[in-house]
Amino acid sequence: MSSLDSITASLASLSITPSATVLHAETNSPASWREALLATPSVPESFELIKTLVYKPKTAKTAVPVPVVVIARDDTETSSSALGKKLNLKDLRLASEDLLAEVFSLDKNSLSLLALTKYTFPKVTTVIDSSIASSSATFAIHASSSSSTIFLSGKDIVSYLQSLETDELKVQEVDFAALKTEAPAAKPAVKEKEEAKIEGAVQIAIGVKKEVDFSAWYQSVRAFRVLLKADMLEYYSVSGCYILRPWSYSIWEEIQDWFNKKIKAMGVQNASFPMFVSSKVLEREKDHIEGFSPEVAWVTRAGSSDLEEPIALRPTSETVMYPYYAKWIKSHRDLPLKLNLWNNVVRWEFKHPQPFLRTREYLWQEGHTAHLTKAEADREVTDILELYRRVYEELLAVPMVTGVKSEKEKFAGALYTTTVEGFIPASGRGIQAGTSHCLGQNFSRPEMFNIVVEDPNDPSGQGKTYAWQNSWGLSTRTIGVMVMVHGDNQGLVLPPRVASVQVIVVPCGITAKTSDADRNKINDACDELARSLIDVDIRAKADLREGYTPGYKFNDWEQKGVPLRLEIGPNDLAKQQTLSVRRDTGAKAPIALGDLKATIPKLLETIHNDMYTKALNEYNAHLKEVTRWEDFVPTLDNKCIAVIPWCEAEACEDDIKERSGRSAEPQDERAPSAGAKSLAIPFDQGRWSPIEPGKTKCVGCGQDAKRWTMFGRSY
Amino acid sequence: MSSLDSITASLASLSITPSATVLHAETNSPASWREALLATPSVPESFELIKTLVYKPKTAKTAVPVPVVVIARDDTETSSSALGKKLNLKDLRLASEDLLAEVFSLDKNSLSLLALTKYTFPKVTTVIDSSIASSSATFAIHASSSSSTIFLSGKDIVSYLQSLETDELKVQEVDFAALKTEAPAAKPAVKEKEEAKIEGAVQIAIGVKKEVDFSAWYQSVRAFRVLLKADMLEYYSVSGCYILRPWSYSIWEEIQDWFNKKIKAMGVQNASFPMFVSSKVLEREKDHIEGFSPEVAWVTRAGSSDLEEPIALRPTSETVMYPYYAKWIKSHRDLPLKLNLWNNVVRWEFKHPQPFLRTREYLWQEGHTAHLTKAEADREVTDILELYRRVYEELLAVPMVTGVKSEKEKFAGALYTTTVEGFIPASGRGIQAGTSHCLGQNFSRPEMFNIVVEDPNDPSGQGKTYAWQNSWGLSTRTIGVMVMVHGDNQGLVLPPRVASVQVIVVPCGITAKTSDADRNKINDACDELARSLIDVDIRAKADLREGYTPGYKFNDWEQKGVPLRLEIGPNDLAKQQTLSVRRDTGAKAPIALGDLKATIPKLLETIHNDMYTKALNEYNAHLKEVTRWEDFVPTLDNKCIAVIPWCEAEACEDDIKERSGRSAEPQDERAPSAGAKSLAIPFDQGRWSPIEPGKTKCVGCGQDAKRWTMFGRSY
Repeated sequence: MSSLDSITASLASLSITPSATVLHAETNSPASWREALLATPSVPESFELIKTLVYKPKTAKTAVPVPVVVIARDDTETSSSALGKKLNLKDLRLASEDLLAEVFSLDKNSLSLLALTKYTFPKVTTVIDSSIASSSATFAIHASSSSSTIFLSGKDIVSYLQSLETDELKVQEVDFAALKTEAPAAKPAVKEKEEAKIEGAVQIAIGVKKEVDFSAWYQSVRAFRVLLKADMLEYYSVSGCYILRPWSYSIWEEIQDWFNKKIKAMGVQNASFPMFVSSKVLEREKDHIEGFSPEVAWVTRAGSSDLEEPIALRPTSETVMYPYYAKWIKSHRDLPLKLNLWNNVVRWEFKHPQPFLRTREYLWQEGHTAHLTKAEADREVTDILELYRRVYEELLAVPMVTGVKSEKEKFAGALYTTTVEGFIPASGRGIQAGTSHCLGQNFSRPEMFNIVVEDPNDPSGQGKTYAWQNSWGLSTRTIGVMVMVHGDNQGLVLPPRVASVQVIVVPCGITAKTSDADRNKINDACDELARSLIDVDIRAKADLREGYTPGYKFNDWEQKGVPLRLEIGPNDLAKQQTLSVRRDTGAKAPIALGDLKATIPKLLETIHNDMYTKALNEYNAHLKEVTRWEDFVPTLDNKCIAVIPWCEAEACEDDIKERSGRSAEPQDERAPSAGAKSLAIPFDQGRWSPIEPGKTKCVGCGQDAKRWTMFGRSY
Repeated sequence: MSSLDSITASLASLSITPSATVLHAETNSPASWREALLATPSVPESFELIKTLVYKPKTAKTAVPVPVVVIARDDTETSSSALGKKLNLKDLRLASEDLLAEVFSLDKNSLSLLALTKYTFPKVTTVIDSSIASSSATFAIHASSSSSTIFLSGKDIVSYLQSLETDELKVQEVDFAALKTEAPAAKPAVKEKEEAKIEGAVQIAIGVKKEVDFSAWYQSVRAFRVLLKADMLEYYSVSGCYILRPWSYSIWEEIQDWFNKKIKAMGVQNASFPMFVSSKVLEREKDHIEGFSPEVAWVTRAGSSDLEEPIALRPTSETVMYPYYAKWIKSHRDLPLKLNLWNNVVRWEFKHPQPFLRTREYLWQEGHTAHLTKAEADREVTDILELYRRVYEELLAVPMVTGVKSEKEKFAGALYTTTVEGFIPASGRGIQAGTSHCLGQNFSRPEMFNIVVEDPNDPSGQGKTYAWQNSWGLSTRTIGVMVMVHGDNQGLVLPPRVASVQVIVVPCGITAKTSDADRNKINDACDELARSLIDVDIRAKADLREGYTPGYKFNDWEQKGVPLRLEIGPNDLAKQQTLSVRRDTGAKAPIALGDLKATIPKLLETIHNDMYTKALNEYNAHLKEVTRWEDFVPTLDNKCIAVIPWCEAEACEDDIKERSGRSAEPQDERAPSAGAKSLAIPFDQGRWSPIEPGKTKCVGCGQDAKRWTMFGRSY
């Protein structure tokens, strides 16, 4: 392909003006491309991705195959078997890199429909999805490389391709939607999956590898468009990193304030530790570091000098802190030591990043405490978990199930891990929402960090004891969970206790005929109303922006999720009332202006409680008691969590994951089909019929069951 | 040299047991060695560094020179000329690396007195400082490399060396202290400095290169031993990074709370941006990045994969944020945009790190705002600077001078930089304590980040205007300045408004004869006193620890700087009073228990005011009006800041720095002799006699002076 300049020039010669041309980070998947575009200023408000696929038909060995280039919308299903039938070509398969190099002199990452030029067009069969020409959408097309994108209309795309046509060779239009309904028996999803596995086969620009968890991914992308619209978040030019704008960061500040007060009352003190860890120290605890090493980011250079040894960015601070715990804890009088950090950590995930849920850098608190006895450590683990539950339930109106993690799912290096486990109704998936670990003496042992004191309870006075340690963390994932649980098609729905604007007051009924005096009267009434609420510690705001209609303002604040809207128009003013509109239910009710200082705080509490109850009912309705394996996968497919009597054996958990992943496959390519893992063994076992030892059997393997355990697909 | 194991074995064969043997980070200077040791758990409470120097005498070309190995305490002056005279050797010079390799088969970083073995000892002349043998100190000696240290007594060192002696060859003891007084005319400081410059010459382990600013460095080390003792700070295993323990971090939290309230009232919102910056983005503003690039840390690897392109850790967030400002600011209605971040930034300094003052990672806030007009931006720059002044003066009781930086000293990329400038009496140096920059339109210009809106004040309706931007930052350097200004020989002195414990209550007069009932009565009275103070929002604490004497407790809390101590003994209880002891002045006064709730808050305010006034008087006393060049350097040498009528030309500033650095040299090797730079052009010019345009001349160059400007040595 030619340079960006020459592409622009050749488009210009056809009188095609792209609506934008942008440079961005390298991309190698639809998700990363979309993300890169969202992170780039000056891309169009809305756009669709175009995928360019190259297939090779089966031909006699001596014949030169003519590759088929398919240009379609990203979300259009392009069944190769149906297409082959249509074009009367045998066994279409994705082309190998070699073929691409041969035909286009290009690698797969640099290929797009713009690689079709007067030189290459004659060598291939070009097929375009017929829906593109008539679409009013703006389409994103890679320009000269995977790090540049040109935005064209469907008409422009067709014009460009037609400019390449000769008398002999035309672009073929194919209606892929129709093709799909024509060939329903062909199981194209499975077929394509197999093709994607062909060695040497490549997908071009936008490929078929929609990940097994496409549905969940799609859900998230929709949810996170909402985040952009609501000014919660901005995509960033480094993949997997995000900007938290004030509208979301203020929620984190509310959580920080609340949690700080609680832990300080428990005697925990805040401190700050460096984010750098030397490799020597990081690798001290093998089990622990094995859990993190694939995701550790390394600093190897400063200015223009290479560092003598690479330095890691903390993925978590156990190994950062504990050498100093060993130094500071010299006597049992130095225990308990309870420190907490509010900081940023780095886990360089190679999976799809998701805002708030899976990000390469994130904000959290991490508490690290050392105790004289296990009993004291155990108690704190539970106390902290209870605070996490309360953050979700009392601040974010999100219900949680508390429990303990299986051996397989516990924190790397922990004795045991307790968890607050949430549920996302839209995807039917569980989500680990916060964890409180008892590390036991794993890190304090002499061969590890050697955190040891004389044992005051040893009668000989000679005994030593190693500190019992805990660590516990809660991150900005809290915000993501809140968004996914409460959000709706209008946008965010913020729980009142964390909303930075709890009440928005909007002047209404002002028309061109309204006199200035009346207009001022209404605006003043709104302003006064907001002030009177601020007086009683309600975070209220009057939206007196000129030049915007009430409808625009309603929509704006609904999208941003403000819990309560109060409207004041001339009639309201005459009646000395305001119309209240709840964001969560849409319910409208007039409230007398004189009652507001008493009514509104109560109404906000009602909204909180109703949001919580609604979410709780949804969670409970999707927590299914399952006692037969036959019901297990259908329960998951029904977007539910399966609670089963379980043996708690690690091999059984592996097996359940494997079997539930496999069996889900043929159903629907876009359904979440990853295997189920154990989410939590709930503390409250009384919700389900008692497990009879030796009698109740494990749903996974048929051995004796120990406890009811939640299994589900998860984030 | 042999391995650590074989060294330990050979010491053991001489019945020498090191008090500790530790591994630590690589070191290449006394400061980094000391720091590495302080960061290593299990080093002795106190120790001195041993330096090992190798000199080569001048000999006839045909003769083989016998190197002289000098073993001395780090702070002992070892004049090579005096030593040469003493040993009757000509022209002793520091040995080259080649010579070291030849004699010891070692590089300079791996050399210590333990490199003297039965093989090498006969090849050299060994000289030991006579004060070592008789010292009771524990000495630190590099073992097998610069990343290992053995701690030995003076006696052990001498025993080791004597074990190498033969009948022909003995270790020579030299009294360097006497040597120094014997040869005062030799100007050894200058002499040694020249020697240190000899090409190929090296200093071994601990060398002579005590930096030109030795005195300041020494001051700081002393001050920062205080930080360790007071549980403020811990040295960390990655050089240049430090742990902020709760005793210091709580001060940062107080500053955060106060500052957050003020800026939120100004309409600033907090947010969070990623710490990663792609190199492309980082390098967008050339002037800006030139100021930072030598100190940028680069992530190049994640897990075991190399990144496609290196990613920087933010040294500051201008280039991180402004691409998104361009995206968000579409209309003049989107202005002003005012965001603030509380985060960590990285500047990989290669100079001596100093806790709080110069660290590779540090905590700060950085505010970034965009405005429609310059007038509005200017106003905010001043408003923020005023908040910085108040943080220092009203929270930390540290006086500041506000002013504007010279062109040379302004922030890279700024239009102008305003500063709060502090003064450290102990070193006589100025310290930049916080800066508020107007960036002008440097970053919003079209070729930069293109932050542009239509100009609402343009009558044609067609005009565009680029945003006027500010950035402003205040870091944990605040805490370092506070420590250095108020600390004394007993340790820290904390200003009451930020002290996490403002009042410590200590039970006194309890002896072996005291009955349990009386003991309880006193303890209860202390506890009750603390509680009654907590009731009126005083951060009070009763120290009821068993097994510690009142004297121990007094010392402990004095070291930690608690502003006020209240003692209660049997006599006090009988008189219903408590003895108050002020940390800042030591003043003692009885206070009636009934009056405490009224008296103590007032007394704490008095302490704050007195601390501030004392520091202000010191600052003012060291701010000297200088109108002749002859007085300039002597003023600096007198630990003062010179305020001069100045022309404000950059060349003149360079010249002043050069001349004041040079002229300071011959005075005293350990005096701060770095050149002076401009610290601030104070806003309040009225303090000094009026500058008469065209008449008052610049002290630096004799051209016309513009304004009174503070020049000084600085941190």
